[in-house]
Amino acid sequence: MSARRTVASGGTIGMLGGGQLGRMTAMAAARLGYRTHVFTPEADSPCAQVSAAQTVAGYDDRDALARFAQACDVVTLEWENIPVDTVAFLAGLVPVHPGAGVLAVTQDRALEKGFVNRQGVATAPWRPAGSAAEAVAAASELGLPAILKTARLGYDGKGQVRLAPGDDVAAAWSALGGVDCVLEGFVDFACEVSVVVARGQDGALAAYPAVENRHRDGILARTLAPASLDPALLAEAEAVARRLVEALDLVGVLAVEMFVTRGGRVLVNELAPRPHNSGHWTIDACATSQFEQLVRAVCGLPLGAPEAHSDAVMDNLIGLEAERWPELAASPGACLHLYGKAQARPGRKMGHVTRLFPKGQAGR
Amino acid sequence: MSARRTVASGGTIGMLGGGQLGRMTAMAAARLGYRTHVFTPEADSPCAQVSAAQTVAGYDDRDALARFAQACDVVTLEWENIPVDTVAFLAGLVPVHPGAGVLAVTQDRALEKGFVNRQGVATAPWRPAGSAAEAVAAASELGLPAILKTARLGYDGKGQVRLAPGDDVAAAWSALGGVDCVLEGFVDFACEVSVVVARGQDGALAAYPAVENRHRDGILARTLAPASLDPALLAEAEAVARRLVEALDLVGVLAVEMFVTRGGRVLVNELAPRPHNSGHWTIDACATSQFEQLVRAVCGLPLGAPEAHSDAVMDNLIGLEAERWPELAASPGACLHLYGKAQARPGRKMGHVTRLFPKGQAGR
Repeated sequence: MSARRTVASGGTIGMLGGGQLGRMTAMAAARLGYRTHVFTPEADSPCAQVSAAQTVAGYDDRDALARFAQACDVVTLEWENIPVDTVAFLAGLVPVHPGAGVLAVTQDRALEKGFVNRQGVATAPWRPAGSAAEAVAAASELGLPAILKTARLGYDGKGQVRLAPGDDVAAAWSALGGVDCVLEGFVDFACEVSVVVARGQDGALAAYPAVENRHRDGILARTLAPASLDPALLAEAEAVARRLVEALDLVGVLAVEMFVTRGGRVLVNELAPRPHNSGHWTIDACATSQFEQLVRAVCGLPLGAPEAHSDAVMDNLIGLEAERWPELAASPGACLHLYGKAQARPGRKMGHVTRLFPKGQAGR
Repeated sequence: MSARRTVASGGTIGMLGGGQLGRMTAMAAARLGYRTHVFTPEADSPCAQVSAAQTVAGYDDRDALARFAQACDVVTLEWENIPVDTVAFLAGLVPVHPGAGVLAVTQDRALEKGFVNRQGVATAPWRPAGSAAEAVAAASELGLPAILKTARLGYDGKGQVRLAPGDDVAAAWSALGGVDCVLEGFVDFACEVSVVVARGQDGALAAYPAVENRHRDGILARTLAPASLDPALLAEAEAVARRLVEALDLVGVLAVEMFVTRGGRVLVNELAPRPHNSGHWTIDACATSQFEQLVRAVCGLPLGAPEAHSDAVMDNLIGLEAERWPELAASPGACLHLYGKAQARPGRKMGHVTRLFPKGQAGR
């Protein structure tokens, strides 16, 4: 575990990545009196609009990184695909949470799934597919249907293809760019859930209640908080998240996406070592949001209480759906969040809206 | 009423004043996808730390004001003592809410009290005291004890002096600087309450529940939301706020501070045409905060719902009290807000903490 080091209110948090997760973290940081300095290649990023300082530079620009490190008391990230080299370089100059070791695991599906399985936690059946021949062999072993995914840099359904019985597996592997892949066996799941868990520098854990996620076109569309599932399954999902965040020795926030099968098994799908779209509801329904937990963790503060004061339904606004914002702004009690992105490209997350309900009340 | 003009998400809100009220408004603006451009004479202001752009210049710098107006889609303010000339100048270039007329009234206690009384709303008995002789005459008319206050630029108990029977009224008037004052007769009040009411460009109103305020050394120390008072008194307080915001033709947010006398009368003490310290609890206890209401009003959006999902107690962190922040950060469920101010001068508002409680539950 890293040595505990507290950053006092008024200090500066460096943020690698300038998207909406960085933006909402910067706002949580400001709530606690911290300044955010964002480092991103993107000019006029969503995060920069609410940050005290910004550096616009490439993640391989060592001079810019060194100056950035000097300006920050601690560094965190809002995107798990920040190059490991970048994080390792910064870590020689300033504390960085989560660290390069966590990123190395979570940037690669094969390493991640291997890591999860080694903790005694189940995933869908999977095989590495580093070549066309390996992909074909994996398909014959696991059977089709299955999903072929690039090992690296996939998100929101990008970098993956569903394979039906009879499909040309070698061609599919080549179509994904001839890169390292994994083949995941078909899972007949009843629903998808996720748990966001924070871990402090002192090793303390705070897990939000498990939520149910509904996807559309491979992108999260709706989160229901809490998930309406058998309490034993919810407890298992939370226990899995706690086990993994500890095994990763992660300081910050970990999101664990899981399938719940029709047979009642919990299978880990994916890890994200950062605030997660399925945790946005915590801004409006909890005294401490997932973004504030990240700030607390990396600054060495005690974690906040993860209890919800309300139930919640969160809907993403994807691409042109954001054009509905005036109607949503007029919907009583809807908590509308827009990310300050100028262009509404298809599939781009433009904002979200959270509706609150008294706890335990039906009818969401 | 001003013509309705909607600023779409992504637009820029100009903020006159750089303090914590501007800071929290900028964060509410960002939630809805707006950018904030702050104009303040203060370098590194709390508001600038979370704003997309800033101008550091004096309120009389016409060149800077003109450039600022050009960069903004609408302008609002976080401090009621922005010079009326500044607002009038800007209003020729860009919509400004609230307008110069509102400020002219609320910057002067004598004009404000006269305005309130003309709406048929009671205040404590008062008399203008523009000279030592007028102050002495007022004291003999209203009797002592009484409070002598400068007509302009008083806040947080500054610019006022309590007069006991036998005190030298003329000397007190001179000690306040020989400026226009008002003398307020003694009110034996049971408690102080306030109502924050928002008014949209379309004239729609949204009033938060009346809250009870407790002061220490002339500065707000604690707000209890909602106030535990006879429902008829609460309804009267809310009706007073609605009447005054309409009479002012104000677009934005108005806070009305009131005394409730032991005899059960509601007397207006002071108006503030901006978000108010006694409304900070709305950030954590309502789907739409007072800051978001201001953003919605000035941008021509429909107002949000002012209902609370929780009861709340808000405590200010004044001066060195802010040094308690690590203890407060460790208090489960406490919503801690710090304003990014470097120096904790005595009497300076450094932050606040809000605790939430299930609605209607006793034991706050």
